[in-house]
Amino acid sequence: MATDFTLDPTLSSDTHAIGELDLCSLVLMNDARFLWAILVPRIAGVSELYELSRGDRSLLMEEIVQVSEAVEAQSGCKKINVATFGNQVRQLHVHVMARHEDDEAWPSPVWGVGTAQAYELDKAQSLITSLARALSIQPRLNVV
Amino acid sequence: MATDFTLDPTLSSDTHAIGELDLCSLVLMNDARFLWAILVPRIAGVSELYELSRGDRSLLMEEIVQVSEAVEAQSGCKKINVATFGNQVRQLHVHVMARHEDDEAWPSPVWGVGTAQAYELDKAQSLITSLARALSIQPRLNVV
Repeated sequence: MATDFTLDPTLSSDTHAIGELDLCSLVLMNDARFLWAILVPRIAGVSELYELSRGDRSLLMEEIVQVSEAVEAQSGCKKINVATFGNQVRQLHVHVMARHEDDEAWPSPVWGVGTAQAYELDKAQSLITSLARALSIQPRLNVV
Repeated sequence: MATDFTLDPTLSSDTHAIGELDLCSLVLMNDARFLWAILVPRIAGVSELYELSRGDRSLLMEEIVQVSEAVEAQSGCKKINVATFGNQVRQLHVHVMARHEDDEAWPSPVWGVGTAQAYELDKAQSLITSLARALSIQPRLNVV
């Protein structure tokens, strides 16, 4: 399944790795304004949900839910936002983010609002550890 | 399942009904700038994906894919965008929209860009008929 898969370079440069779910690589958006995870199915050449098999789509939905619950537990957020666009980065990827009534973009979607604020490295490492533990996966503590 | 379900009044006022899928009511956003459908699971009191049963989540994913394919076939779009926010309208609803490289918001997400342009009624009726046919559902031709 993962033979030809490599994470898109834009996704890679904008995020820190969290770990590997059964279907998806899970990464943390490097924007401390929002707790924002991105799931990337490890299947090469896929841009649209309908290009996944039905089984993989169902698995993706379950991983979205698992990440949503982990993100909500970590943040105590008011609402989870889930989205897949791919207009610029074509590799299929799904945003899962915690939203709070006092966040910078509330109640709008976050895209186009303000400027990303990179994490302090110890904060990123702490979040990666916590999210990986909540998801029962091995954390990727390679934040540099 | 649908005992207490009624479509949120904001969703109702912003859209035209297309028809009923097995899980979701399907409506057409009344914004002629984008071919934009919204799926609303007919289950009362649900705001987050994780509040649906696993079976209903899987069915929702399949209905998202069916609507994506219908919207793409209708529009010849470059990319499908899928999102669920619910920061303002709490009733769980999933946006599925066709994106083109020459649309008003490309390549950004559409939220916060410009102003909705209501459909001419014959255009809305034509789209509802076409999408319902593509989805093998009965069209709701109640555009007034």
